[in-house]
Amino acid sequence: MEERLKKQLDFILEIDKEKNIFRQTHLSGQGRNENDAEHAWHMAIMAYLLREYANKEVDIAKVMLMCLIHDIVEIEAGDTYAYDAENLKTQKAREDAAKEKIYAMLPDDQKQELIALFDEFEEYETAESKFAHAMDNMQPLLLNNSNGGRDWKEHEVTAKQVYGRQNKTKLGSETMFAVADQILQENIRKGNLKE
Amino acid sequence: MEERLKKQLDFILEIDKEKNIFRQTHLSGQGRNENDAEHAWHMAIMAYLLREYANKEVDIAKVMLMCLIHDIVEIEAGDTYAYDAENLKTQKAREDAAKEKIYAMLPDDQKQELIALFDEFEEYETAESKFAHAMDNMQPLLLNNSNGGRDWKEHEVTAKQVYGRQNKTKLGSETMFAVADQILQENIRKGNLKE
Repeated sequence: MEERLKKQLDFILEIDKEKNIFRQTHLSGQGRNENDAEHAWHMAIMAYLLREYANKEVDIAKVMLMCLIHDIVEIEAGDTYAYDAENLKTQKAREDAAKEKIYAMLPDDQKQELIALFDEFEEYETAESKFAHAMDNMQPLLLNNSNGGRDWKEHEVTAKQVYGRQNKTKLGSETMFAVADQILQENIRKGNLKE
Repeated sequence: MEERLKKQLDFILEIDKEKNIFRQTHLSGQGRNENDAEHAWHMAIMAYLLREYANKEVDIAKVMLMCLIHDIVEIEAGDTYAYDAENLKTQKAREDAAKEKIYAMLPDDQKQELIALFDEFEEYETAESKFAHAMDNMQPLLLNNSNGGRDWKEHEVTAKQVYGRQNKTKLGSETMFAVADQILQENIRKGNLKE
C-alpha cells in the first residue's frame, strides 16, 4: 500500500477514539452523556439545515467539515467544559499541542489543510467559523433544554455564564441567538437556570 | 417563533435519537458497539479525506451530507445488519415508511431534498452514491479489522458474504476495494474470517 494511503487510513482509525470523549451534555430523553463524535455529527447536519439563518452567506461544505473535525484535538487534549474556568485557562495550549500531534499522522497537505481549518474555527473571524460556533453553542442548548436544564443544574451554571457564551452565537446568526434567548428566558422562568 | 424554524428545530431534536441506534460493529480497541451517529460522522470525514480515490470526480459536499443522513431512517426502522438475510428482505419497506414519517417533520422543501438525497444513496447509481457506499462498507471493515475480525466471528460471517458486500465498494472506488481485498485476505490467512 502506498505511504500516502496508509497514513490516511491510520489517521481514520485514530479518530475513532473521538467516540470515547464524553461531554457534560446529556442526550435528549434524559439519556447518557454525549460524546464528541455524536456532537459533531449533529452540528454538521444542523449547520446544513439552518444555513439560511447565517448572518452572512457561508460556504456550507466548509462549515460542515469544520463542525466534523473541530473536536478531534480532544482525543489528546480531553473535553473542556464550557463553564470550567480552571481548565479553560489551559485549553488553547493543550489543543495546540494536540493538533500538531494528531494531524501529523496525515500526509502533509492534508495535515496543513485540517490544521488551517481548525485554526480558522478557533479564530472566530470568518463567516464560516462564526456560524459553526453558533451551531456548537446551540446544539447542547437544544439537548439541555429538552432535559429541563439538567446539565446547568448539575454544574450550578448561572444565566450570566450561559449568556456569556450564547452572546457570541449572535456573531454567526442573529436568528439562532433569538432562539437561544427565548430558550434561556423560559428556563429562567421555570427555575431551571439560576439568574 | 416562525413555523418553518420550529419544524427545523423539532427535526434536529428528533434525530438526536440516532445516537441510540446501535450497530453490530464494535469501536476500535475492542470497544463497545458503535451507534449510527458515530458511524455517519466517521464516514463523512473518511469521504472527505479519501475523495481522491473515488472512481469519478464527486461533489464532496453532497457525499458528506449523504453520509451524515443515510441512517436517519433507522431511528424508525432500526439497524439492519449487513449479513442478516431475514431482516434484509423487509429493510426497504421499513426504511421507506420511516423516511416518509421522519422527514415530514421538516419544512416541505427540506423534506423533499433530504428524501431525494436518501433515495439517491439507496439507488446506487450516481458517482456520489457509489462513493458514499464505498465509505459505508469500508468504515466498519477498518474497525473490525482493528479488532481481529471480532464482529465476523461473533456472527459466523464467511469470506463469501463479506466479498458479496465489498465487491460493490469497487463501483465507488477501485483503490478502496484493493484495500478491502488486502484486509480480507489477511484476515482469512489469520483465521479471523472463514473461507
